[in-house]
Amino acid sequence: MNTIGHLFKLTTFGESHGAAIGGVIDGCPSQLRLDFDFIDNELLRRKTANSAMASQRKESDHVEWLSGVLDGTTLGSPIAFMVRNEDCKSTDYETLKDVYRPSHADFTYEQKYGIRDWRGGGRASARTTLPIVVAGAIAKQVLKEKGIQVVAVVNSMGDVELARKEGDTVGGIVECRIVGAPSGLGEPMFGKFSAELAHAMFSIPAVKGFEVGDGFALAHMKGSEANDTFINMIDEGYGAFRRETGPASSVSKSRVNITTLTNHSGGIQGGITNGNDIVFRVAFKPIPSIAKPQETVNRAGETCEIAIEGRHDVCALPRGMVLVEALAAMVTLDMWMLQEVQLL
Amino acid sequence: MNTIGHLFKLTTFGESHGAAIGGVIDGCPSQLRLDFDFIDNELLRRKTANSAMASQRKESDHVEWLSGVLDGTTLGSPIAFMVRNEDCKSTDYETLKDVYRPSHADFTYEQKYGIRDWRGGGRASARTTLPIVVAGAIAKQVLKEKGIQVVAVVNSMGDVELARKEGDTVGGIVECRIVGAPSGLGEPMFGKFSAELAHAMFSIPAVKGFEVGDGFALAHMKGSEANDTFINMIDEGYGAFRRETGPASSVSKSRVNITTLTNHSGGIQGGITNGNDIVFRVAFKPIPSIAKPQETVNRAGETCEIAIEGRHDVCALPRGMVLVEALAAMVTLDMWMLQEVQLL
Amino acid sequence: MNTIGHLFKLTTFGESHGAAIGGVIDGCPSQLRLDFDFIDNELLRRKTANSAMASQRKESDHVEWLSGVLDGTTLGSPIAFMVRNEDCKSTDYETLKDVYRPSHADFTYEQKYGIRDWRGGGRASARTTLPIVVAGAIAKQVLKEKGIQVVAVVNSMGDVELARKEGDTVGGIVECRIVGAPSGLGEPMFGKFSAELAHAMFSIPAVKGFEVGDGFALAHMKGSEANDTFINMIDEGYGAFRRETGPASSVSKSRVNITTLTNHSGGIQGGITNGNDIVFRVAFKPIPSIAKPQETVNRAGETCEIAIEGRHDVCALPRGMVLVEALAAMVTLDMWMLQEVQLL
Amino acid sequence: MNTIGHLFKLTTFGESHGAAIGGVIDGCPSQLRLDFDFIDNELLRRKTANSAMASQRKESDHVEWLSGVLDGTTLGSPIAFMVRNEDCKSTDYETLKDVYRPSHADFTYEQKYGIRDWRGGGRASARTTLPIVVAGAIAKQVLKEKGIQVVAVVNSMGDVELARKEGDTVGGIVECRIVGAPSGLGEPMFGKFSAELAHAMFSIPAVKGFEVGDGFALAHMKGSEANDTFINMIDEGYGAFRRETGPASSVSKSRVNITTLTNHSGGIQGGITNGNDIVFRVAFKPIPSIAKPQETVNRAGETCEIAIEGRHDVCALPRGMVLVEALAAMVTLDMWMLQEVQLL
Repeated sequence: MNTIGHLFKLTTFGESHGAAIGGVIDGCPSQLRLDFDFIDNELLRRKTANSAMASQRKESDHVEWLSGVLDGTTLGSPIAFMVRNEDCKSTDYETLKDVYRPSHADFTYEQKYGIRDWRGGGRASARTTLPIVVAGAIAKQVLKEKGIQVVAVVNSMGDVELARKEGDTVGGIVECRIVGAPSGLGEPMFGKFSAELAHAMFSIPAVKGFEVGDGFALAHMKGSEANDTFINMIDEGYGAFRRETGPASSVSKSRVNITTLTNHSGGIQGGITNGNDIVFRVAFKPIPSIAKPQETVNRAGETCEIAIEGRHDVCALPRGMVLVEALAAMVTLDMWMLQEVQLL
Repeated sequence: MNTIGHLFKLTTFGESHGAAIGGVIDGCPSQLRLDFDFIDNELLRRKTANSAMASQRKESDHVEWLSGVLDGTTLGSPIAFMVRNEDCKSTDYETLKDVYRPSHADFTYEQKYGIRDWRGGGRASARTTLPIVVAGAIAKQVLKEKGIQVVAVVNSMGDVELARKEGDTVGGIVECRIVGAPSGLGEPMFGKFSAELAHAMFSIPAVKGFEVGDGFALAHMKGSEANDTFINMIDEGYGAFRRETGPASSVSKSRVNITTLTNHSGGIQGGITNGNDIVFRVAFKPIPSIAKPQETVNRAGETCEIAIEGRHDVCALPRGMVLVEALAAMVTLDMWMLQEVQLL
Repeated sequence: MNTIGHLFKLTTFGESHGAAIGGVIDGCPSQLRLDFDFIDNELLRRKTANSAMASQRKESDHVEWLSGVLDGTTLGSPIAFMVRNEDCKSTDYETLKDVYRPSHADFTYEQKYGIRDWRGGGRASARTTLPIVVAGAIAKQVLKEKGIQVVAVVNSMGDVELARKEGDTVGGIVECRIVGAPSGLGEPMFGKFSAELAHAMFSIPAVKGFEVGDGFALAHMKGSEANDTFINMIDEGYGAFRRETGPASSVSKSRVNITTLTNHSGGIQGGITNGNDIVFRVAFKPIPSIAKPQETVNRAGETCEIAIEGRHDVCALPRGMVLVEALAAMVTLDMWMLQEVQLL
Repeated sequence: MNTIGHLFKLTTFGESHGAAIGGVIDGCPSQLRLDFDFIDNELLRRKTANSAMASQRKESDHVEWLSGVLDGTTLGSPIAFMVRNEDCKSTDYETLKDVYRPSHADFTYEQKYGIRDWRGGGRASARTTLPIVVAGAIAKQVLKEKGIQVVAVVNSMGDVELARKEGDTVGGIVECRIVGAPSGLGEPMFGKFSAELAHAMFSIPAVKGFEVGDGFALAHMKGSEANDTFINMIDEGYGAFRRETGPASSVSKSRVNITTLTNHSGGIQGGITNGNDIVFRVAFKPIPSIAKPQETVNRAGETCEIAIEGRHDVCALPRGMVLVEALAAMVTLDMWMLQEVQLL
């Protein structure tokens, strides 16, 4: 299960200190001229993120395109790409070989596979999310042509400077908005737009919470407060809209433009988009790699103390935002493709 | 996309006022003696829920078993079952045929399919979740034999009595705990235990938020607060455990029992279970069907007022808890099966 | 794995002498007015088949539509349907409970599941293919609107009359032709049109061989004999076509109509349809239920003799042809939908 | 759809003259020490095949392992690998850029994708099957530990020497035998062992026919001839077996060993393996690239003549046999994994 998507599919591979990190995109439309500058830029956003906060690993993150593209144009065949792991100091991790870092995946990987790549976090490293950024950039490019944009912003974040000083890390919340998506996206039973988004977001390391629209706050509202009133914004024909307020027989059918007054639902009702902005929030826990000394145990069950040096971010948000956008774009494109089949 | 699960799969069908609601379970182990009393009891929990709060639709919810079972024992072939829709008053809904109920799926279904079953909410009705309860009960039975239990409780809920009086509805939060699940469940990249749970929970109508462990609260913590310290609870051999606190060479390997002191992670690290209780919370919005008059528009774009009479719950939680448990059980069994293959 | 299809999906359920046989179609386009007469007629073709050859089980084969259809029009939600098993004489089979019928699935089912429904062949009965006919009929209806037709004929068949007299059965070969399918259908690597057809055809009980175009005969040809010459049949504009034979600069681009002179390839090249008739053949072994006495063993390993009375066909072809058509239609529609996404 | 398998999955990528050909194996058990010599040897078998017949393209076929392996041992994470395309003479193909080679995929790819990689056959090149050999070798290694072997032989083949002299190509039939597979493999409805094999075999370029056991010949038999009599080969305890011929009460249950006297079924009954050798045949058409001049048309619809020079095999069988074995091994392992889940 290293594949995501139904029609626009990404399979990823790679460990932090292995030969390469990469992916295979299957289902990308053919005859698309890839915007390599945009892809590189997205990777740069991920890499430098907020450089004040970012990890100091130096990677050129140069993407090698292995297949699926001829003279910059997609062929319809699978697009494989990879980035070599250059700056690997596996020896940094040698001391961690037998120790379980608190709230890391060391212990669980070993329980699952009976073996674990201890070099730099192996498959569980945040670096393995790089292919998501590449696929997300391509999805964004396709969506852009349809007038759909995906933008994530920081909703809240801990005090990064203080934390760094303390050898600690902080968490935060990312808010994302998908603007311009048509109504009708999402499969109503087990492929709700919200369910697909939730699944995708929980694929990002450190994510512990997800909510759509007013989310958890809705749990404390009444129906009369939470419901989004449908309104008809009549298109006046010269770029202006006027809210129709009565049962006027004069309402011209061709100009009916139904939307909602509020957007507590976050653009999704019954699992299907309603044409409003799709709004959701993603909660990131603090990055578990802290410089502060921590107690833990090793494989033998002996108690020990560790202070994780290495090169680590203080907060997952700067990189996380790029991933949130990328996965949101991939889900939107995937659901859009599924809906196109429905419309046949 | 009316199927959930990878190896233990449920496909559901049915509209609220159609002939029947039902499902097909594919992948259930053979030679399992089904506990029909338990299944009926789970359905009863769903139906009556908190009867003070529940909808008044009278359904006997009698399950007809169509296939896959011989003399009460599973055959390994697909288990199909259905419940007839008996007490359908579609005429109750006749007036809603052309009107979009606020925060319901009326508008989005019509946008998606160009057609909608207006009778009782059609496919979007909460009634269509009934097959989940059946499949969940079977999953629970299998898990029980492995010592795994799934229990959901109310974490918070609005004032139901007040709301009913006001012709309004309330939301709430369900907390669920999976106890006894082994470590190693969950696929690390795009099938994280948390991602699969999130996907499943967002398949429940009215769900708008999901968090694992300390969830959104983790966004406001520091790493040193959020990390779960690994400890070794040495098995003393007579049912008692003692926390090993030093690098004692006396630690006997055979008695090593690594767990965590706290459980901020909610039993899931790197997407994989660590053997602790799996803890998550699900936020339900208030049910959108309120008796209070609301403004909305009809298909023609005309503004109108509706007061939804019909038979409706005041809060989704009583039924929702049964669904949360059922889906959590299905996900756990499914991930357990996947892990068994890994262990080959 | 009781589901077939990627976008137009059928899940089937049911054992021969269980409560019902049925299926769930997920992915059928909405707003389709189902032609129930046509569906019933297809079922009648399957049931009576060549009545001289057919089994004598009397089933009304009345389809109950459980969901997904409102006033005869598809809703986009899953279409569930079933046929009750009425005329079950399980006692006919009581003597076969512990005996393995030669070349039947009795032994293998028991090996797989540790349990087997001995009543009338259980899940392995030919009766379980009934839902395929229903889904196939719907697929045919959709294809018909696109000008695509699927027709199967007998290519060769043993002497049914003689066989019946002898208490024996015969095999045969069905040839099927899909006419009017556009070029471009089929996924080139692991979803070749031919591979999808082969997979579908081997889902029919008693099928032991499958070939496309000239099939096995191609193994004995040379390339110069087997290759299909591309030609340009210029559209003369009044319904007539003329083969362009030279590099004439006068060839008008708008009238270019490339096809092949011969069709050794059976309409599929590189796994993708080329616009010619898709032609394939399916080999059916003789039905293994013969009245002639046969030696076999029982569960205890004791040798015994059986003569299978019951109600059985002499040849699988009459019913088999309907199944071949149904599955070919389903595959074509499914591949057509996948290609529509590619063309976005 | 560039992925094959349910639990042991291979995704392939690459065009003949692109940067690289490769694959990602997802679902390979962890802690397997890969036998790289064996893998290289299988690749060598594919490359040199029968060198008298093989194409003259010089490729070192050096496999770069990109992920999923640490010190030669599988990690459980996806195994990505690739082979660089070194000896690409795309200019050889420049003249074919606008011409449709008869019975090649040039025309159909262009119809499907609106674009085609004309360099060396692009994605349709036989070279793209290389990753199948790698994945097949790993599957073989796993199967070998379970005592399962897969061997393909030439069943019939045209006169290669004559054909080469004539500038022509020949077809042939491969027979494959899976020895040692347990009974119970294969899913009975839409994942029959035979259906999965058929699907896999038709993924090999140039395959036009597939049959199991006596295959097409069964179509001309009677039931009494085609049925495989069940027998009990009693284990005498010292490595010898004796056929039990009577209903002797002396048959010891623990020594019951049911098999069949003949194997017309090819080891598969009801879609499930019965423990006998699994036997099937695959028909390959002659390779369509012939040196002999052929008539065809170009993109403009003009008739032209081509003689395909380049470097091409005379017969697909030598390489084809390696592919048949590889895919058969992958299917067997995949079905074996699925059955392990069933047995839980």
